[in-house]
Amino acid sequence: MTESMIQPKAGRPEQRTARTAPESTTAPEPHPADGHEATTLLERTRAAVDPVLRTALGSLPAPMRRVALYHFGWQNGDGTPADGGAGKAIRPALVLAAASALGGPAARTAALRAAAAVELVHNFTLVHDDVMDRDTTRRHRPTVWTVFGDADAILVGDALQALALRLLAEDPHPAAPAAAARLAQCVVELCAGQHVDTAMERRAPDEVTLAETLAMAEAKTGALLGCACAVGALYADAGEAEVAAMDAFGREAGLAFQLIDDVIGIWGDPRRTGKPAGADLAARKKSLPVVAALTSGTPEAAELATAYAAPHREEDVEHLTRLVELAGGRDWAQTQAADRMARAMQEVARAVPDPEAAGGLLALAEFVTRRST
Amino acid sequence: MTESMIQPKAGRPEQRTARTAPESTTAPEPHPADGHEATTLLERTRAAVDPVLRTALGSLPAPMRRVALYHFGWQNGDGTPADGGAGKAIRPALVLAAASALGGPAARTAALRAAAAVELVHNFTLVHDDVMDRDTTRRHRPTVWTVFGDADAILVGDALQALALRLLAEDPHPAAPAAAARLAQCVVELCAGQHVDTAMERRAPDEVTLAETLAMAEAKTGALLGCACAVGALYADAGEAEVAAMDAFGREAGLAFQLIDDVIGIWGDPRRTGKPAGADLAARKKSLPVVAALTSGTPEAAELATAYAAPHREEDVEHLTRLVELAGGRDWAQTQAADRMARAMQEVARAVPDPEAAGGLLALAEFVTRRST
Repeated sequence: MTESMIQPKAGRPEQRTARTAPESTTAPEPHPADGHEATTLLERTRAAVDPVLRTALGSLPAPMRRVALYHFGWQNGDGTPADGGAGKAIRPALVLAAASALGGPAARTAALRAAAAVELVHNFTLVHDDVMDRDTTRRHRPTVWTVFGDADAILVGDALQALALRLLAEDPHPAAPAAAARLAQCVVELCAGQHVDTAMERRAPDEVTLAETLAMAEAKTGALLGCACAVGALYADAGEAEVAAMDAFGREAGLAFQLIDDVIGIWGDPRRTGKPAGADLAARKKSLPVVAALTSGTPEAAELATAYAAPHREEDVEHLTRLVELAGGRDWAQTQAADRMARAMQEVARAVPDPEAAGGLLALAEFVTRRST
Repeated sequence: MTESMIQPKAGRPEQRTARTAPESTTAPEPHPADGHEATTLLERTRAAVDPVLRTALGSLPAPMRRVALYHFGWQNGDGTPADGGAGKAIRPALVLAAASALGGPAARTAALRAAAAVELVHNFTLVHDDVMDRDTTRRHRPTVWTVFGDADAILVGDALQALALRLLAEDPHPAAPAAAARLAQCVVELCAGQHVDTAMERRAPDEVTLAETLAMAEAKTGALLGCACAVGALYADAGEAEVAAMDAFGREAGLAFQLIDDVIGIWGDPRRTGKPAGADLAARKKSLPVVAALTSGTPEAAELATAYAAPHREEDVEHLTRLVELAGGRDWAQTQAADRMARAMQEVARAVPDPEAAGGLLALAEFVTRRST
């Protein structure tokens, strides 16, 4: 549930480069992955969902409203207006794209409140995770707890979860109760994922298995992306099989995203990530490529385990980076990410056979996973 | 949202003495305040609601389930079974009593899941409040954060809120969405109350007004008792006016409870409260009698303000107690509590004109406010 799930860390490019695929064909492109299409979808989502979010936050009592508006980037710490930075709205975009793919524009409109609810849940987990992880920066600004203290951060997170579920409880759409139940259950899974993550960080490097690291990443990152897609499908009155396929699509895309994000956390260009090279290694994070390397059975695995257990020295990072690479961590992560994306494509094809209707979903999936290292 | 809201502090009597009113009349007593009736209602509530709660907690992933079962007193910290201590279940009892008063046994049965949801919300706020307030004891046991750490306490609180709202989202009863919306909005109010409370404790004694202290107590204590009664009324298909009256009843009873609880916090018998005499004064708590004394305009008020701003010395407590009493803090709180109870009775009569049908509600209201000092 950390920012690295889906929001770019400070300095990572907010704008993706357009695909090199030709855009000059006259017929609409049925292919899924058009960076421009994703950007447009995200902008449309922000335009449609922000008013719902602002109304919901506006209903909070004044002192908590101030903290919430700060977190969403709409106010500064002193209460003066600020200019956005509320995140890219990937999750609400997935809700709307899924509703649209399975039920057309009417379903998309009907799912607006649900899209805002999913975004509120995402943000509640960010605020609480930052408290637990003592993270000090989020979306290029100091985190809520550093500005307002732990108590206010906990309280505002609690209130954001309540707002999310109130939005759905007040939604007269027949899909709303099922969506609320799904979103609430997803919160439980997000909490379980964060629990495993914090517990895992305290364990010795050689005690962590790849299977549990993948399961943790699915719970922390995949679950809410899957829930977003499933909720959109519910608002399109989709059948159980379609809803399940949409959930699986979001989960696979989410895992692909996390794998790529972890690769960037080690091999990312500091000029683009805004973090020193190998920041995740310096912090001894048990990210997916690292655990893959640790459990590779190679000679470098043992060396890496020893080095990871030792205290941090500045000059280690380059050595650690090389060890993870030599132990196959990078190759594994990239292969896994491609594999997850392939599975995501299969799931979406199951729920939405018409590639044109599925275009928005695929564009968003490509968008979150196409990161330049 | 602290334990003092409704749960007895360590050592306070869990069993109330039976009323002195005769119980040998053959016709059922229409009067509201029978200590035995309340105890029976609470026992019946626990018997009916605990299975729903246990099923809900049982659905949590294993590591979080363990923390939740510890908080509810059903497991020890090491995971071995423990024998209860999950609290007196005042709030679910109010849900069921309100449903029963307005819709008979069928409504009571229908409201079981909602009663469990209200209890889950109450417990989520307890777990989080203990983190924020650094309280170390709850229901005679170490608090969750002292046993499992802050992160797990935050996560389990989050999950309990989600479970509460999932229970209602999965409830096919036509009242469930309105109940969920009301409960979610109540969470926002509880958070706002806790926010004001923590902010108020940091302010100088002479900067706090009585009106804002009362508003804080209503948000922290009255809101969820009111919500419990209103939710019960919703499951009885009551009209808007009845639901509003039930909400007001619970709020007034909740405030009466808080006033009496604050009086006990100063003048309570240490042998019964399990806390040293004047513990709230030693902690410089800005409880209702204290703020009433501070804002009384009496000579003792000024003296109290000076003494409250000074660091704690053991021998001060007796002096502070006398000052609060001389400044009228005790009389004010007791008069206020009686006044709130009278208002609560009016509200319940408005919603439930038949005193016999209202008996359970009145018995519970008397139960929570009849505390021996």
